[in-house]
Amino acid sequence: MAMAGRVNKKIVARLWKNGIPAVGLTGLDGKTLIAKRKDKIVAVENGRKRVIRGDYSGKIEEVDGRLLNLILENGYVPVVAPIGISYENEPVNLDGDRAAVHVAKAVKANIFISLTDVQGVIIDGKVIPSLDRQEAEKILKKVGGGMRKKIFAALEALNLGVKPVVICSGLEKNPISSALTLKTGTVIE
Amino acid sequence: MAMAGRVNKKIVARLWKNGIPAVGLTGLDGKTLIAKRKDKIVAVENGRKRVIRGDYSGKIEEVDGRLLNLILENGYVPVVAPIGISYENEPVNLDGDRAAVHVAKAVKANIFISLTDVQGVIIDGKVIPSLDRQEAEKILKKVGGGMRKKIFAALEALNLGVKPVVICSGLEKNPISSALTLKTGTVIE
Repeated sequence: MAMAGRVNKKIVARLWKNGIPAVGLTGLDGKTLIAKRKDKIVAVENGRKRVIRGDYSGKIEEVDGRLLNLILENGYVPVVAPIGISYENEPVNLDGDRAAVHVAKAVKANIFISLTDVQGVIIDGKVIPSLDRQEAEKILKKVGGGMRKKIFAALEALNLGVKPVVICSGLEKNPISSALTLKTGTVIE
Repeated sequence: MAMAGRVNKKIVARLWKNGIPAVGLTGLDGKTLIAKRKDKIVAVENGRKRVIRGDYSGKIEEVDGRLLNLILENGYVPVVAPIGISYENEPVNLDGDRAAVHVAKAVKANIFISLTDVQGVIIDGKVIPSLDRQEAEKILKKVGGGMRKKIFAALEALNLGVKPVVICSGLEKNPISSALTLKTGTVIE
């Protein structure tokens, strides 16, 4: 749960340094992200699959946006760590990309920006500037790992009515402002 | 910063388990607890004093209760980890007892309950049922360690207009309900 502790606090402090009134939260707070705890997860280690039981990870099933909206409407910027609460009231780790999609939906976001360490969806060495839903679904077969998860999350965002989605690099200068222009990375809508 | 991560999240989950709508926060959030970072702290190790520089701990100088009150007024129960924000916008560790006093003052608390692992202020093997300010000040010389810090915090609470203060055991059954009767532990006012 380092995400809820050190990392989240560092982001909150850094935002304040830039004059942004941040509030660090997790999906536990206000029971914002309610998740079904997984019975088992399959981990791939050195190419071998391994089943892990008793792990505290979960899949989001219900979202309560009241706390997030209360905080936003009062001028604060929530920073949400991907930890949910299980039906048994235990903290559970969530997939960060999908948690972000549910947060975006809960606050009726006008855009979903997914920052990563590459410049967007790259096929044959080139960044694809835009994709519609069908194209994004097709491209899923051609990409792997983290980008695959990001495109999955983008499709889930579209299904929940959150769009456009921008997948772009968080390592560039002013990545959020750039993403808002829809002229950087890969725009999916 | 384990207090902000694991411990705070565990308390929040446990409260939800008991039907209490909790929200985990730190003093960073909403810049609630602004602290002056200490240049150095003096640590006592095996009876020897040691000066530590570059430590991230601080002393609260300003409090902004707006976020806490917003959360309370909307039916949530804030659980605040003792981490503040420095004037340089860094996270700093705070003394937990004193941070609690400032939180109590910010939310205009009707009582300040300080839970510990003994039954109250104990002198000559007996729990003192009540103390006024002058008595509490005198007793400071007779107690050490953690209890000394708790009495200091109690006096700070009185100075800020927060009273009564109850110092009692958190290991008993229903410690909060008991403390509210003012018939357990040591009541300072």
